[in-house]
Amino acid sequence: MEKKIHAVVTKILEDYKKERSIDKLDLANQPQKEGIIQLLHKIIRLVYPGYFRDSGYKVYNLDNDYAVQIDDAIFHMNKQVNRALRYHAQYRDLDDGELEKISQKLTISFFNQIPKIREYVEGDLEAAYDGDPAAYFREEIILAYPGLFAITVNRIAHELFLLEVPLLPRIMTEHAHWQTGIDIHPGATIGKNFFIDHGTGIVVGETTVIGDNVKIYQGVTLGALSTKGGQKLQGKRRHPTIEDDVVIYSGASILGGETVIGKGSVIGSNAFITKSIEAGTRVSIRNQELIFKNRDSNIVRKTELEQDDNWQ
Amino acid sequence: MEKKIHAVVTKILEDYKKERSIDKLDLANQPQKEGIIQLLHKIIRLVYPGYFRDSGYKVYNLDNDYAVQIDDAIFHMNKQVNRALRYHAQYRDLDDGELEKISQKLTISFFNQIPKIREYVEGDLEAAYDGDPAAYFREEIILAYPGLFAITVNRIAHELFLLEVPLLPRIMTEHAHWQTGIDIHPGATIGKNFFIDHGTGIVVGETTVIGDNVKIYQGVTLGALSTKGGQKLQGKRRHPTIEDDVVIYSGASILGGETVIGKGSVIGSNAFITKSIEAGTRVSIRNQELIFKNRDSNIVRKTELEQDDNWQ
Amino acid sequence: MEKKIHAVVTKILEDYKKERSIDKLDLANQPQKEGIIQLLHKIIRLVYPGYFRDSGYKVYNLDNDYAVQIDDAIFHMNKQVNRALRYHAQYRDLDDGELEKISQKLTISFFNQIPKIREYVEGDLEAAYDGDPAAYFREEIILAYPGLFAITVNRIAHELFLLEVPLLPRIMTEHAHWQTGIDIHPGATIGKNFFIDHGTGIVVGETTVIGDNVKIYQGVTLGALSTKGGQKLQGKRRHPTIEDDVVIYSGASILGGETVIGKGSVIGSNAFITKSIEAGTRVSIRNQELIFKNRDSNIVRKTELEQDDNWQ
Repeated sequence: MEKKIHAVVTKILEDYKKERSIDKLDLANQPQKEGIIQLLHKIIRLVYPGYFRDSGYKVYNLDNDYAVQIDDAIFHMNKQVNRALRYHAQYRDLDDGELEKISQKLTISFFNQIPKIREYVEGDLEAAYDGDPAAYFREEIILAYPGLFAITVNRIAHELFLLEVPLLPRIMTEHAHWQTGIDIHPGATIGKNFFIDHGTGIVVGETTVIGDNVKIYQGVTLGALSTKGGQKLQGKRRHPTIEDDVVIYSGASILGGETVIGKGSVIGSNAFITKSIEAGTRVSIRNQELIFKNRDSNIVRKTELEQDDNWQ
Repeated sequence: MEKKIHAVVTKILEDYKKERSIDKLDLANQPQKEGIIQLLHKIIRLVYPGYFRDSGYKVYNLDNDYAVQIDDAIFHMNKQVNRALRYHAQYRDLDDGELEKISQKLTISFFNQIPKIREYVEGDLEAAYDGDPAAYFREEIILAYPGLFAITVNRIAHELFLLEVPLLPRIMTEHAHWQTGIDIHPGATIGKNFFIDHGTGIVVGETTVIGDNVKIYQGVTLGALSTKGGQKLQGKRRHPTIEDDVVIYSGASILGGETVIGKGSVIGSNAFITKSIEAGTRVSIRNQELIFKNRDSNIVRKTELEQDDNWQ
Repeated sequence: MEKKIHAVVTKILEDYKKERSIDKLDLANQPQKEGIIQLLHKIIRLVYPGYFRDSGYKVYNLDNDYAVQIDDAIFHMNKQVNRALRYHAQYRDLDDGELEKISQKLTISFFNQIPKIREYVEGDLEAAYDGDPAAYFREEIILAYPGLFAITVNRIAHELFLLEVPLLPRIMTEHAHWQTGIDIHPGATIGKNFFIDHGTGIVVGETTVIGDNVKIYQGVTLGALSTKGGQKLQGKRRHPTIEDDVVIYSGASILGGETVIGKGSVIGSNAFITKSIEAGTRVSIRNQELIFKNRDSNIVRKTELEQDDNWQ
């Protein structure tokens, strides 16, 4: 057995010398997934102060306690940003001192956005509470709703995306994707009071722009018409614009960088939209013809379902 | 740098004084998400004794060991219930002693339901094993199937929901939602031998009632016709009734509080149902017309797909 | 209170004596879910050396370090395989010595496949990078994309499936399913350069066969026409064949063991396919008729949507 183990170990070690793109043997200060996710949770604790605190927390030293927590988050953010910046073409060849300066500057810029992030997240919370009869308490939404979590992570990661910090934004939003089944790219721009109901299966692409007071349901895709171009399409507008006050029901797909869903429109379940929709329009699928068979497999009825408006 | 850090820390601390609804700075004994989820896993270990035990477990002191584990779960349940009860309008203003009494009473009531929960869960396991040719062992289903996990959490949380314990039930089922992509509200009432296959993307709303021997697939929604009413709809019947022996295939949506799917019916993939269906009916979508184009983009065939019965 | 606690503890302990199929009170060396998942992550660290390493890692003793890690993974694999083999009809009654021999043999066989697994996974990474304009770095894909993770776990678990190791393969792929919402059975056979975009809601059944350079999107089902046969269908071919160079867009379902999607075909979003498709065919749904209503609920337009080709 020992011989066989030795042989297989040697075989695998040989394979590590083939310079495959899945190996990472040479880089000392590479970004660490785990560290980035811990950092994300530190920031979330700052966005919702008190909600995710340790049970030993004391109320009377609130300011001191949070000052320490903010300091700590700044320290870790700076560390991770510093590592990630080496992936940015513009910063790749800077010396350590210059890189540290830029990293500190970007870190401070990010933390200056936290009050804005909190203002938006508060609006998202209220939109979820107002819109969902199954929500009994705001605490349920903050502690448990995947939609609010995914939006919060987008709002944090989007600020890092705007600062052109490499790697961190996407690792953060994909963490939310793994946790919730809601895949929002950090590049997506989202207005105030955004509400995601249920959420599993949602995809919001990188260049999507969403207005204020928008509500989307599980299984909705805001995607690209084609990604055949692959890497050549990088940075190009590929995803739709959703104007203010739009509702998009479950399973609907809205595709394409030139597609605009006009203000106040309602998109029905499972609709597949690749062209722009005028403001104030209600779109639904008309002809899902259903066949009803009885126990003897005789067709008893065919219904051309005129979808009622009442479900919108 | 230090100055800038100080400035941003101050800015964030100032923002904490704005009394936003996302802050939780004042409450000493608030519910802790982490504690509630740990409690849930303690209960799951009691529902499936031996399956999720520590590796150091000894067989000869089984009864003692489980007695200790049950005691421990009762202690933690009582602690979390006690905290959560302050959210209940009826209990908000009780003194600590009165609250503790009620909390103990509800905790004992819950644990008295564990044998019933176990009876139902055993039926769910057998339904999964019988219904899935890809299941080689019951152990696979218990240790790994997301469907059985989500159902188990609903059965636990539903008992707490019936006892009107605030917060805990929803935090438990949303934990299952995060873990599995299956979103079953704790209010949903589910009969015996319930089988969820694959499961990702399923939504089962709060006032849904499901009979015995029902089977549902990935992407099924049992939802509301409209939630425009928001908080005003709270507690109202908004979700469908699924009678005994119904099968609902992937991607189907069944909506509305007055919609009843009659006993023994089969609902085909992607059907969108907003009206009641008589017992024993097989419903399928008829006219998904497909266009087939060859390499030169010429249309070679259009098929009005008569969906075969064999897939049901 | 103490009396009541005693009563409920006794009641639950009594219930444990009913020999339910959800109890596991008798087996000393049963498979441990947690141990199997830890093992999986050890193997993933070997597949992507350096990517998921501890931060204290030093570069100059690379070979020694990995030799130790491989040794450790072999030890744990052998331990878990040994336990699981008791579930295999052929090995159930062997004595401990014989079982250990077989377990060692299977373990070594598995580790000999690691270079092959790495070769395939490298191809999958390149397919993801080439195909996704939203991927800025290969590191994002390795560290964060759920699709590559689910494929990697399938490639690992599939080797164990081929070696007929019970339980481990399914527990590993269901772990990936919980993590990512992508449900690929370990029995599924997958060719080179497989790319899953977004991924949530994907189901790939046990007897599916997928060729080289295939790309699938979120919500795709490669499933069975019927599982009414339940356990009697075990091992029978129930899921489709997808030939080389096929693209399957979001929400499409392809069902049945005799269904073959010919080389180079493109299957449009939400298509529901239960029959074979010739090579080089582009299939799309034609007649999703949409109704557009204005603010006064008057129908302003009905469009029989001719799905453009540009989204494929």
